[in-house]
Amino acid sequence: MTHTISVLVENKAGVLARVAGLFSARAFNIDSLAVGETEDPTVSRMTIVVRGDDRTLEQIIKQLNRLVDVIRVRDISKEPFFDRQLMLIRVGLDGKSREKLLKLAQDLGAQVVDAHQDNAIFELAGDQKKMDGMLEAMKPFGIREVVRTGRIALSQKTEVTLKDLKE
Amino acid sequence: MTHTISVLVENKAGVLARVAGLFSARAFNIDSLAVGETEDPTVSRMTIVVRGDDRTLEQIIKQLNRLVDVIRVRDISKEPFFDRQLMLIRVGLDGKSREKLLKLAQDLGAQVVDAHQDNAIFELAGDQKKMDGMLEAMKPFGIREVVRTGRIALSQKTEVTLKDLKE
Repeated sequence: MTHTISVLVENKAGVLARVAGLFSARAFNIDSLAVGETEDPTVSRMTIVVRGDDRTLEQIIKQLNRLVDVIRVRDISKEPFFDRQLMLIRVGLDGKSREKLLKLAQDLGAQVVDAHQDNAIFELAGDQKKMDGMLEAMKPFGIREVVRTGRIALSQKTEVTLKDLKE
Repeated sequence: MTHTISVLVENKAGVLARVAGLFSARAFNIDSLAVGETEDPTVSRMTIVVRGDDRTLEQIIKQLNRLVDVIRVRDISKEPFFDRQLMLIRVGLDGKSREKLLKLAQDLGAQVVDAHQDNAIFELAGDQKKMDGMLEAMKPFGIREVVRTGRIALSQKTEVTLKDLKE
């Protein structure tokens, strides 16, 4: 089963390696990972999407909670949640395909980041399904490069605030 | 100096921990990290933003290149590049602030993901400056939760394709 784990950590050197190490020690592959700042510059939030059996994951979560620099661990996928990701995609274009491609990007809700004579970069935000649709639609034009952020997620229920947690 | 490193890796368990370990072994703090699929499901791309001295980073890049599952390492920030990130932000609202907040989100180019009686989730894609502006503008309304993807980046110059690299 796929799980989406949200981990609040102190923003310090080595924390990421320790967290990643716990997953790799049990041969859990991380499908997607996003690490970014929060509203507090000393705290980062990691969003980790993993597949694997629930019992092993429970053990990993227990070990995560024991790490000094981990503030809070939450399996967001246990409740209804929103998940989003961002993709930059460079696609080849020529005089013929140009108009068609720009129209397609508009229909998909993608932004044009850059456009040259022979290639263009588009930006698309959305859920996994939207990303897959975009990749499928762009394939015939020739995909040159793809870079994706990994998923971030927020529970549909209100969370205790970071301020509350730190007090 | 801040560097943005793009690393193509085989999508296997343990790769992330090994890459993160190289940075933490030299006490390099990772400011932002994004790991996502590419157009090839067996290959992931990591975008790593780090601050630190150029010489140590050069050594880390050499060591990265020596890891078995690393396909290619590139310091994107050596050339002009585009960088983007995605943020989900939950903000408190009430009868009074509702209209003002929704108008502000629209002006900032944010999407409404969810809106309840007392809180709303917005989605914003853009560069670091745009994120900072959003956080600043939302602060008076009461920020409940923030989750960010970390940055992804593409060089303004065309890159060799993954297909070329693997052949």
